[in-house]
Amino acid sequence: MKKLINDPRAVVEEAVEGFGLAHPDLVTVTADPLFIARKDAPVAGKVGLVSGGGSGHEPLHAGFVGLGMLDAAVPGAVFTSPTPDQILPATLAANSGAGVVQIVKNYTGDVLNFETAAELAQAEGVDVRSVLVNDDVAVEDSLYTAGRRGVGGTVLVEKIAGAAAERGDSLDAVEEIANRVNQNVRTMGVALSACTVPHAGVPSFDLAEDEIEIGIGIHGEPGRHRIPLENADAITARLLSPVLEDLQAAPGQKVLLFVNGMGGTPQSELYIVFRAASQILAEAGLEVQRSLVGSYITALEMQGCSISVLKLDDELVELWDAPVHTAALRWGV
Amino acid sequence: MKKLINDPRAVVEEAVEGFGLAHPDLVTVTADPLFIARKDAPVAGKVGLVSGGGSGHEPLHAGFVGLGMLDAAVPGAVFTSPTPDQILPATLAANSGAGVVQIVKNYTGDVLNFETAAELAQAEGVDVRSVLVNDDVAVEDSLYTAGRRGVGGTVLVEKIAGAAAERGDSLDAVEEIANRVNQNVRTMGVALSACTVPHAGVPSFDLAEDEIEIGIGIHGEPGRHRIPLENADAITARLLSPVLEDLQAAPGQKVLLFVNGMGGTPQSELYIVFRAASQILAEAGLEVQRSLVGSYITALEMQGCSISVLKLDDELVELWDAPVHTAALRWGV
Repeated sequence: MKKLINDPRAVVEEAVEGFGLAHPDLVTVTADPLFIARKDAPVAGKVGLVSGGGSGHEPLHAGFVGLGMLDAAVPGAVFTSPTPDQILPATLAANSGAGVVQIVKNYTGDVLNFETAAELAQAEGVDVRSVLVNDDVAVEDSLYTAGRRGVGGTVLVEKIAGAAAERGDSLDAVEEIANRVNQNVRTMGVALSACTVPHAGVPSFDLAEDEIEIGIGIHGEPGRHRIPLENADAITARLLSPVLEDLQAAPGQKVLLFVNGMGGTPQSELYIVFRAASQILAEAGLEVQRSLVGSYITALEMQGCSISVLKLDDELVELWDAPVHTAALRWGV
Repeated sequence: MKKLINDPRAVVEEAVEGFGLAHPDLVTVTADPLFIARKDAPVAGKVGLVSGGGSGHEPLHAGFVGLGMLDAAVPGAVFTSPTPDQILPATLAANSGAGVVQIVKNYTGDVLNFETAAELAQAEGVDVRSVLVNDDVAVEDSLYTAGRRGVGGTVLVEKIAGAAAERGDSLDAVEEIANRVNQNVRTMGVALSACTVPHAGVPSFDLAEDEIEIGIGIHGEPGRHRIPLENADAITARLLSPVLEDLQAAPGQKVLLFVNGMGGTPQSELYIVFRAASQILAEAGLEVQRSLVGSYITALEMQGCSISVLKLDDELVELWDAPVHTAALRWGV
């Protein structure tokens, strides 16, 4: 295992500490229990947005804390759910009295721990809603999930719901917007290589030199099938076919196309995939109105990518374009 | 070789085409000869800024085309200088009549080809200045270079000189600012793994399972020495020691700290390095006034990082903070 780390058991704490040192204008890091809050949280009158999950998916979620996106992020150990005793203070820190929406990727550990924290926060008088993200069309049920997994769509849910909260939407409205994004986004990914969890020290799985895994999860958990390596155009078609089948978008539909790197893939390859995906969407009569290309939800140093397609309406476009100021996503400010 | 590509000989053209499709609001791509220009270039009355070099370092340079940064970028083949017949039209596209500053990383091929293009542009009446970036303290002379190589500091030169051009500085002034940034920045990098040039198909060099290369170049060309793998704190100290020795910053000096990923390194590891670097700078009495963490000048999928330290003055801070709107760097707009 070759990594730029110190003690494998301290990677999350040290990375988060470094994150806080690099972005003192944006965030406050609380060390014990560990969570990251927006510098000015809670923002008076604003609905709070909290997310979190296992570490190893950076910039998700800490990189999305700030104006127009999350109020707090809760990092678990690598690929391991954060605990309720972390999620509770993060939820309280995000609450200005207008209530809190939790954005939870659909993994069993996350679902349970966010639920427990929500109950504890409710006992303290906080109105907490939970929005489950489950955009991965690759598999029903998996190693860590009942139902579909939450993957790339999470980034879009956090951006758009964050903008709704920032403009002053009610708790009901922010919850509705977050659910609307989740219902209108589908994702599928591919791995060209495995990744190594620091405290494990060995790759999570093995892929042969000429093999790729279609439908991979963001923890390296199994996807649909393994196939021999193909070219980018063919892989893109394999990912988009089930996405579009499930999305049921009518010709003329405007969409956001999100090509996401898994951590170890150069940006040039993501743009080659974006090019292929643009062609396929054009052939399907869909109009790419907004795009996002980069490594925003990763699996450590895994090579590969995921493709998300979000059906847009005018309100979602307006919220997507709204100002955001976080470490990983910033515009308009 | 496992990559998300089609024809290995078409990676640059396809990636740039995808880049243009993803960012139609920002750039115009000219296919033959290949270059990327700011959508509204030339900007009336503004000094033009042009950079370029071998591909494989993305987002450098195309990702930095836009308001407040470059007017044009010229991508060569992977790790190969662009040709004068590419650089010339890019220079003309950037010229509004106020002249053009070329930002050239110090590699022999780049230096020669930008010089030839400058002479051709001058013959067409364009006032062209050339600023050489040579911030890498690792080696004097190398596989592709006489003198020091241009590496991470290039990103800072492009941002700050771009802001000077955007605020309306004269050709002399933009050239001076670009040179000032170069003179005040030092960088050193490390590789944990090699990278594979697509048309070569095999890794550029070999590193043993327990070995890293200190002082690596951004093409995988040799650095200072190979050593057994160490932890992040020790590696950071090894990179910063020659940087600080060469920088000769007095205690109390304000600096920008830039931790750059080489392409295959997860963001969490970059923040662990940032944490270690912050501590070392604090011990040296330097104040980190601005920071940048991410993969901005890469070597394909190489694992590793570089650390740049830039001595700041009030004007450099003001120009760093000025609005920028490019695919890879954006704020204030």
